[in-house]
Amino acid sequence: MNDIPSMQRAGANAVKAIIDDVIAEKLDVEKIFSGSKGTFRIADLGCSVGPNTFIAMQNITDAVQQKYQSQGLAFEMPEFQVFFNDHASNDFNTLFVSLPPERSYFATGVPGSFHGRLFPNFSLDFVYSSYALQCLSKVSEELLNKNSAVWNKGRVHYASAPDEDITAFLDCRAKELMVGGLLVLIMPGVPNGIPHASALTGAIFDFLGQCLMGMAKEGLISEAQVDTFNLPVYFASPKEMTQLVERNECFSIERMEITLPCAGADDLIV
Amino acid sequence: MNDIPSMQRAGANAVKAIIDDVIAEKLDVEKIFSGSKGTFRIADLGCSVGPNTFIAMQNITDAVQQKYQSQGLAFEMPEFQVFFNDHASNDFNTLFVSLPPERSYFATGVPGSFHGRLFPNFSLDFVYSSYALQCLSKVSEELLNKNSAVWNKGRVHYASAPDEDITAFLDCRAKELMVGGLLVLIMPGVPNGIPHASALTGAIFDFLGQCLMGMAKEGLISEAQVDTFNLPVYFASPKEMTQLVERNECFSIERMEITLPCAGADDLIV
Repeated sequence: MNDIPSMQRAGANAVKAIIDDVIAEKLDVEKIFSGSKGTFRIADLGCSVGPNTFIAMQNITDAVQQKYQSQGLAFEMPEFQVFFNDHASNDFNTLFVSLPPERSYFATGVPGSFHGRLFPNFSLDFVYSSYALQCLSKVSEELLNKNSAVWNKGRVHYASAPDEDITAFLDCRAKELMVGGLLVLIMPGVPNGIPHASALTGAIFDFLGQCLMGMAKEGLISEAQVDTFNLPVYFASPKEMTQLVERNECFSIERMEITLPCAGADDLIV
Repeated sequence: MNDIPSMQRAGANAVKAIIDDVIAEKLDVEKIFSGSKGTFRIADLGCSVGPNTFIAMQNITDAVQQKYQSQGLAFEMPEFQVFFNDHASNDFNTLFVSLPPERSYFATGVPGSFHGRLFPNFSLDFVYSSYALQCLSKVSEELLNKNSAVWNKGRVHYASAPDEDITAFLDCRAKELMVGGLLVLIMPGVPNGIPHASALTGAIFDFLGQCLMGMAKEGLISEAQVDTFNLPVYFASPKEMTQLVERNECFSIERMEITLPCAGADDLIV
């Protein structure tokens, strides 16, 4: 149940009502309509191959259409263009042949890392990312350096937040999003005040590290191999995310919630 | 030499100077700039997997940049977004991992038939299609009907123009292109006044049909199989293309030329 696609699905279900509310309350459709010339552009960053991304994109287009109708702008309803993004090694062929035939949007695929620029300036109205931002672009070199204070000896995961990736993500999206647009991030996280290592996933990763160290003691692998093996994931807390968003200075946090979409998964930040 | 990619490459080389000229003379960059909010959007319809499409897109972005500079608009240089389109069964995975790292545009893939809508209204500034528009969406049912006047008995190709596909293509592009944008079509064709069957490719297809009929006479295949086998391609003449464009009423033909990009290939219409 707790593989990434299952968590994405559970996360999407858990936050559908929240996204509907945020679109209804916060999306500035008049400003967007005047700027986008009749096209509403949505990106799913870290979309994988579907079908979760198709469900999420349909939910968003439905909610935006509802917003236009409620604003008395039904006669100015935009056309939707959805940009499905993931790494270039993602199986876009499968994604493309799986597209729902009855979709209400024009579909495009965008290959590349969301830690860098993917779109022109001010070219998106809505950015969505589900269970993807916890993946880091690379393992920090400091963790591999024996002389560093944060050398990750005998551990397989990060003890403190590697800010660069989320900072880079926010910097890029700040350039790509239209003024008045929305950025929705669904990501596994840890509650405020609980160190990463003490949360459920931290404990699991610690246990994995201890198992590997046990194997090293038995001579099955070397300690150096354990020291250099680090999972490039980090589960941030709401406080950490708030600090990073405020430091960026281009976004305001309209809503942030922790949900528990499926038993056994860690907390979820929206 | 005369496979589609080789012809695309030869065609692109043959028309590079023409496209450069047309962009320099005809592209209304001031109108486009005011409408597109700083993004210049280009589509290659029928792009295949590269590298020909990458060369063509780089040539176009270079020419547009040159145009902006010559107009004194260098300080307003747009960002480029390229939409690579082909059928959903195209190998987009290969296309995406082959993208030139040093490209001057944001890359996207668009799956689907260019005989239908692929983009929102007025969302493209430049549409390019090379050696693709001769491919028809399907074999006309009339050709398979024994009672039809155009029953294709013993032949494997079209004798007269199946207008619906090019008409549908032009209707869709007329909606998708911005006012002031450009549509460049490179396609194999036949000279005016020469019936399709009398041109080089027509003669080759006739010969193929005769071979198949010979095989049918020897009992290797049935005549019914030959009668129902039809290549879904048609090489139009400049006159036919002109009539179809004029009938659409949304485009004006700024330039049309016949070139001979490679010996043995049929003529080329731009």
